[in-house]
Formats: sequence, C-alpha cells, structure tokens
Amino acid sequence: MIYDTLTQPTLILDEARCKANIHRMCRKANEQGVVLRPHFKTHQSKIIGRWFRDLGIDKITVSSVGMARYFADDGWKDITIAFPVNVRQIDEIKALSAQVRIGLLVLDADTLDILGKNLNDPVSIWIKIDVGTHRTGIDPAQSNSIDALLDRLAHYPQLSFGGFLAHAGHTYHSRSVMEVQRIYGHSLAVLLDLKKKYVTSFPELSISLGDTPGASMVEQFGLVDELRPGDFVFYDLMQEEIGACQMDDIAVAMACPVVAVHPERKQWIIYGGAIHFSKDFLLMEDGRKCFGRMVNVTDHSWSAADTMNNPYLISLSQEHGVVQCTDQNFDLCRPGDISLWLPVHSCLTADAIGAYINTMGTPIDHYRRRVYE
Amino acid sequence: MIYDTLTQPTLILDEARCKANIHRMCRKANEQGVVLRPHFKTHQSKIIGRWFRDLGIDKITVSSVGMARYFADDGWKDITIAFPVNVRQIDEIKALSAQVRIGLLVLDADTLDILGKNLNDPVSIWIKIDVGTHRTGIDPAQSNSIDALLDRLAHYPQLSFGGFLAHAGHTYHSRSVMEVQRIYGHSLAVLLDLKKKYVTSFPELSISLGDTPGASMVEQFGLVDELRPGDFVFYDLMQEEIGACQMDDIAVAMACPVVAVHPERKQWIIYGGAIHFSKDFLLMEDGRKCFGRMVNVTDHSWSAADTMNNPYLISLSQEHGVVQCTDQNFDLCRPGDISLWLPVHSCLTADAIGAYINTMGTPIDHYRRRVYE
Repeated sequence: MIYDTLTQPTLILDEARCKANIHRMCRKANEQGVVLRPHFKTHQSKIIGRWFRDLGIDKITVSSVGMARYFADDGWKDITIAFPVNVRQIDEIKALSAQVRIGLLVLDADTLDILGKNLNDPVSIWIKIDVGTHRTGIDPAQSNSIDALLDRLAHYPQLSFGGFLAHAGHTYHSRSVMEVQRIYGHSLAVLLDLKKKYVTSFPELSISLGDTPGASMVEQFGLVDELRPGDFVFYDLMQEEIGACQMDDIAVAMACPVVAVHPERKQWIIYGGAIHFSKDFLLMEDGRKCFGRMVNVTDHSWSAADTMNNPYLISLSQEHGVVQCTDQNFDLCRPGDISLWLPVHSCLTADAIGAYINTMGTPIDHYRRRVYE
Repeated sequence: MIYDTLTQPTLILDEARCKANIHRMCRKANEQGVVLRPHFKTHQSKIIGRWFRDLGIDKITVSSVGMARYFADDGWKDITIAFPVNVRQIDEIKALSAQVRIGLLVLDADTLDILGKNLNDPVSIWIKIDVGTHRTGIDPAQSNSIDALLDRLAHYPQLSFGGFLAHAGHTYHSRSVMEVQRIYGHSLAVLLDLKKKYVTSFPELSISLGDTPGASMVEQFGLVDELRPGDFVFYDLMQEEIGACQMDDIAVAMACPVVAVHPERKQWIIYGGAIHFSKDFLLMEDGRKCFGRMVNVTDHSWSAADTMNNPYLISLSQEHGVVQCTDQNFDLCRPGDISLWLPVHSCLTADAIGAYINTMGTPIDHYRRRVYE
C-alpha cells in the first residue's frame, strides 16, 4: 500500500473525492445555466485542470500572470487573472494576451492607460467591485469611479468591458448556511444593480461572483452569469467548519511520519510542520488552535468517520507538528508510523509543499514545484 | 538600481547586514570558548553557509536529512540533524553517515535499536532534553529513561554518546532581557546537572543549547559547550520584538509591487501574500495582527529608521497583502511602485519563497527552491 513506501511529509490526493467535488460543482452550475469559471489557484495543477476540461469547462480563473501562462501552455484559451493588474508585469501580460484570451481586473484609470498603450490584442477588462469584503475593489456606490473607468476604457478599442466581478471573501467568517446565503444574496444584488445600470451601454457585460462557501451552500444561484469558486476542488477543515462540505469530501491529506510520543501529556511529534501545512489554523471552542485533524488510513485512501474524535495538530514549528491526543486515541500511532492529516486550508498547504501524489503513488504536478537541490 | 527591475515578490538579502550578524555571533562564541554550531534551517543556502565557513565554523545544525545531504554535498563534514530521528529515512541516514559525521537526536530505545542495527559508520547520538518548551525531549527528572537509553546505546559501538541537547524555544514567548536570561540560566543549569551526573561514565559528553533570543541576549554563556542558534543570520520582526536584535539588523526584506490603493480606508494592496511571507504574525497592542512592516528603499539597500511609523501588513491572502497606512504615510506608494517589507519570521518566509537575490540582483540558492513549471 502506498503509505508503506513514504518516508517524508507527502500530500496525498484522493482522485475519487476530488473528481466527485468537481463533478458536483460542474453539474450544479450547468443545471442552472451559470458559467463555471473555476479558480485554479487551489490545485495549480495541469493534471487536475484536465479533469475539469473533461467535463466541458473551457474558462478558468488564476491568481497570477505566471499561473495563467502555465495553464495557457496546457491549452486553456480563456483565462481570468483574478488579481489587480500588476503593471510591472506588462511585458508578460502582453505576451500572454497574444497567445490566449485573458481577463484582467482593473481598479484605476492609470492602469487602464498602461494596458491600453501597451497591449495590441483583445483583452477583457473586469471592474473589481467591493461587495463587503473590504480587501480590494471599488465601492459600488461610487458611480463616478466606475464611469471614469468606463470612459477611459472607451479610448482603447482592444480593451473590451467584461463586466463586474466580486469576491465575497467574507463568507469565510460565516458559520451558517443562512449567513452564507445572505452574503451571496447581497453580493448578487449589488452586481445586478450595476448590470441593470450599465447593460444598455454594454449589452455583453457579465457579472461574476466567486467563493467556495457561496457556490457550495447556495442552492439557487439566481441571475449571476459566472461563478469562480476554487477551494471546492479539495475542500478542507475551514470549509467543513463553515458548512461548505462534509469531512468526507476533503480530497487531500498530508501523510507524516510520527517521530516521538509523549505519554505524560498525551502528545505525539510528527515530521510535518509549517513548511508543509502552512500556518492557517482554526480556533477551537476552548481557545486552542487546530492546524489539522487526523484521519484513519484505509487500504486505498482514508476514512474521515472518526475525525472529530481523532488527534489534532495543536501547534506547528518549521518542520515539527505537535499532536494532541486523548487517553482513548494516544495509542493509535507509535514512532515510525505514518499518520494522515486533513489540512485547515488546502490552497496554502498544496502551495507550501508544491507537489501531490495520488493514492496509487503517481506524482501530480503543481505550478510552484519544489526542487530539493 | 535593483528594485527598478523587479516585477514580482522577491526576497532581497542584504549581504552586509547578514555578514555582520554572522560575524557578531561567531566572535561572541569564540571569545567565550563556546563551539558555535549554527542552525542552517533559517537560510538553507550553500552560499550563505560558506560565509560561516570563512570565519572558521566547521560544525553545523540542520532540521532534516535532506538538508544535511545538501550541505554535506557542499563540503560540511560535521552535521547535527536537530530533529527526532525519523526511522523511515534510515536508508538516507545510513548513506549520509558513510559520507560525513552526523549527530542524531534520540528519545526512545526502539529508535536506537533501528539505528544500531542498520548503521555501520560512527554516529553521534544526542539525547534530547525538555528544558521547559514541552515540544519534545525527555523530562530531565526521568533518570530512568535516560539510563535506559544509555544502556541500550552501549550495545552499538558505532553509536557514540554526544551528550545532552536542548532547544529553549520558550524564549520566543519572552519580551525582556531578564526573562530570556532567566530561561537561558535555567536551561543551562538543567544540562549542567546532567553533565555532572554522567561525565564520569562519558568524559567526552557535551551539552548543547540553541535559540536565537538566548544566544543574542545573554552576555555570559557560562559552561555550555555548544550553541545552535539559527534565526540570527537574518533576524526578523519577531526577534526585534523579543529584543534579540535591532530593526536595522534584519537582513532580508520582501520587495512587492503595489497593485491598488484605497484612500477611503488608507490601505494599499500589494502583490505579496501568504505563499511569499508565510502566515506567522505578531499581535499588536490594539489586538490587530502584523504580518510585516515597510522599510524605506535606499539606493543600495533599505533604511529601517522609520519602520515603526511606516505602513504595515494587516492581513495576507494567498497572493494579496493588505497594507494599513495612516494619513501621514498613505502617499508613500502608488500602484506600480515597489514596496519593501521586513518579515515577521524570516525562516518561514525564506522557505515559502524558496529563493533570494542580493542587493546587486545576484541570485542566492535555497535548498527548497521553487521551479515555476
């Protein structure tokens, strides 16, 4: 079995769970006539990207210019870079726009000028709207800012207006279906108001929303044109806590050797730390942090059935993880055993370790691969 | 100037500051007749390692078997792997022990048996002692456990007893010189007691302590044999807050393009997020988090003079950083500018991004390099 062969922290991808997550989201969007433009920053993998393509997906979202190039090289032809344009990368953006259709996020007129003066090929320009996350985006009440951008856009015929795009990232602070639905409803209403106002001048404009809690927990997507969730491809403990998935939907787990046990405080030490998991955590009811939860190894994957009663990661150093056990589960592992851990935030965990293997041991690529010199 | 050429988040190494940090620590250890066995997990770089070698250092510490191999390949001959032995890597450990002298940390007799039965070449065995951090190590009061390990060790002539090793990681929770000195004094006393007890049977045994706050803030190291600090090579905001360094000693800074500004809340958005900085933070007095602080660009490096009045990173997403400014400093940057950020925890930041350039633009290697596919 695959786990027997492992010697170091290794991120295991359960393809069946991952494909079920992809299938479910594609079907849901498809049934409602909404374009699914999945965010590929979670998996950052050509191989996993192709599983989406097999289901008819032909538009994607990424978070950097380099990631767009990586997927363009694998045949993706319609890519939104969901990050405010970094004008220092104008040469790369130009090269990419000559190769595929790209969508860019713009918040200010100076950036539009730089794009307009440097790009020759057709590009879609999205105006980023702040629907309440307050990370970035234009306040939808600032009509002047939006009008100024659209006026400037008109100077550059190769830049077409894609529409209004928002990320309702504040769903990550929610812990109930009703709250996520409320945020989704509000975000959609904001974008629909903008669409109504501008659709006469721009009949092709779309509105695009995207976050995994919303896309997972809202049943009726309403009149949104496009959804851009990403994390659902793997899910993780944070999504489970929000209510966006079941424990058994989580499609990645970190395999870590146990290297020491401390019966006096019912703790183990695993080889697996911040450089493998990243340092995102969940705060538990007792005020302690949780950096991961153990699942039980099975012959060909894992079982998430006992996860909430299993040991959990209470702290992470650079390469160590400290595991809190109870009297009941302390004896589950001994030094030399492999333990399996669901991550708190799968996007950052996949990026930290920069590689996967599937449950058969086959390597799966990642855009930001690690090379051990 | 180097910053003008940057297009993406880039970790800048100021060689002059770094070499001054190395020099200061080497001189301090040398003057007191203490062996400095620096921990290379912070920089993970052959090039930086050689700067230590140039000052006469010939013993080093690392945190993984792979990292030991990386430095062994660059000519290091005496390497302690300061992590509990992971018996799943026994083949790699065996290969390495045939190449160089390695030191291994052991906490249980079963692991000693596996080492004894598999290794042919001489290896130093260190017993890890818990001096109060409660991460890992044997409680020094458990004489039985220590005696049992030493009895077992005697079965394997190729395994020699190096001594007692501790990491006083709880200095990281301290915020005063007196508290760090108290922890150092206590840790040293624990190890000296053990030395006194066992030195007759093992006249060659050493005691080894290691943490950057202790090594930086304690003036008289006392009767310790060996020190293993690591972070001092770069220092960071956490060390500055503890009191282990001055802001101006910090030798790495992340250069990040500014991509958006939000005057209504005095915030900028930078291209630079969790995948570049890692997610360690400092809690500020007002309860807000700080993920990095801006320094001012100078012609050939940066000035840390205004750091506490400068903008700081209030949150990090995967690739975005949100910067909090004030009325006074909001205008320091505009979209397209490069901003420079001191990291909270330089070990994790260097590992996350996996590369450096110096202030002349020359690349500096890192063991866990990123390859953008």
